[in-house]
Amino acid sequence: MRNLLLTIAYDGADFSGWQRNPGARTVQATIEAVLREMTQDETVTLRVTGRTDAGVHALGQLAAFKTESAIAEQRFLRGLNSLLPDSVSILAVESVPLDYNPRHKNAGKHYRYTIWNHREIAPADKRRAWHIYGAVDRMQMARAARLLVGTHDFAAFRAADCERPSTTRTLYRVTVSELQARRELRIDVEGTAFLKNMVRIIAGTLLDIGRGKLPLELVHELLESGDRTRAGITAPPHGLCLVRVLRP
Amino acid sequence: MRNLLLTIAYDGADFSGWQRNPGARTVQATIEAVLREMTQDETVTLRVTGRTDAGVHALGQLAAFKTESAIAEQRFLRGLNSLLPDSVSILAVESVPLDYNPRHKNAGKHYRYTIWNHREIAPADKRRAWHIYGAVDRMQMARAARLLVGTHDFAAFRAADCERPSTTRTLYRVTVSELQARRELRIDVEGTAFLKNMVRIIAGTLLDIGRGKLPLELVHELLESGDRTRAGITAPPHGLCLVRVLRP
Repeated sequence: MRNLLLTIAYDGADFSGWQRNPGARTVQATIEAVLREMTQDETVTLRVTGRTDAGVHALGQLAAFKTESAIAEQRFLRGLNSLLPDSVSILAVESVPLDYNPRHKNAGKHYRYTIWNHREIAPADKRRAWHIYGAVDRMQMARAARLLVGTHDFAAFRAADCERPSTTRTLYRVTVSELQARRELRIDVEGTAFLKNMVRIIAGTLLDIGRGKLPLELVHELLESGDRTRAGITAPPHGLCLVRVLRP
Repeated sequence: MRNLLLTIAYDGADFSGWQRNPGARTVQATIEAVLREMTQDETVTLRVTGRTDAGVHALGQLAAFKTESAIAEQRFLRGLNSLLPDSVSILAVESVPLDYNPRHKNAGKHYRYTIWNHREIAPADKRRAWHIYGAVDRMQMARAARLLVGTHDFAAFRAADCERPSTTRTLYRVTVSELQARRELRIDVEGTAFLKNMVRIIAGTLLDIGRGKLPLELVHELLESGDRTRAGITAPPHGLCLVRVLRP
């Protein structure tokens, strides 16, 4: 028995999220079906670092599976990529200890939220960025971002149906940067663990602060009150990408 | 009567090329249908700088049309983008002199051919780059690229069915650059005018030289002999993008 770890990139637009769900096209089900084919009908189950929602992209998702198959890692990599649709790519296959579960054994995740802040947008950017037209004060967004760094109660930054008992999380990094002649805004968020929709609510709140719809001081109040109803909107999923899982 | 010039970006994967063609989904037909709707059934014809083939992308295609409509440029821009599919974007609408035809009045074009030279590739890169795995000598490619700059007979670098009487063309720039930790190779080509498939045959030939399948000296021979059969393969369309039309 071996435990193989996959590094996976996918285009979220093509899937109803990561998690297997009967009747829906999901990343997990798509990869598991190909693994079943390659292992001659083993019942393969992928254990993932963290599920992503419908529409969310990944450049470095991690998922592991156990197999009796003797196929070498490099052959698994080539075989998977030749059988998978273009919207999923396996970037690496490595053998890891049998007890390794990427859900528990990770040092955090790096998410990126991309905003396109210019009236016109090219087709390729529409697929990966939230299109916002109008004045955005990026310095104000960067100031708000810095207030989120550290260990806080992020109850105000989670979906209404999020059921995690504890809402305290630690963010190592929340930065706002500009690219492409100031048209592209990147919000990079790194932390140990995340609540449901946390990065998308952070992105929506930072943007509302940048647009002057919400005051900078609100960030302190949100972290103290935990009141979701006062935070910004949940930014749409297609601007979000799981860039990398931090390995311990 | 006004003459309006559109700057257009499109995702070539979604279309059977630029040119209107009954029964096919083309960029020209898609935009003209929306223009007809906006101008209340005027018969609108787009005059384009240069047709692009099926699969080829554009970031700055130019096309003009004449209209009796009094709709302001900014309203045209917004209306077009709200009615067009996501795979076509209008980046600018401007009023130009009635006799302006972007096919004749341009100072050249800038094309970019993108190669992804690493075994693994993410889904977003598959859409816009030719995926080549294996050693590529980029210095050798850059040397070959420099030999193409200037005014030459490019008969060896055109499709068999290209019917242009003259095959002499001038290239201002042919450069090879590396991005993304040396995984992405960009071939940028600027010139006054191009023969059919010229940039794709240049890309295929430079790559074959980089892979050691063809010798560097072949470039001189190709420019002298005009023998298409000795040049490299025609690189696939999805790696090619019309970046910009140079305005006079």
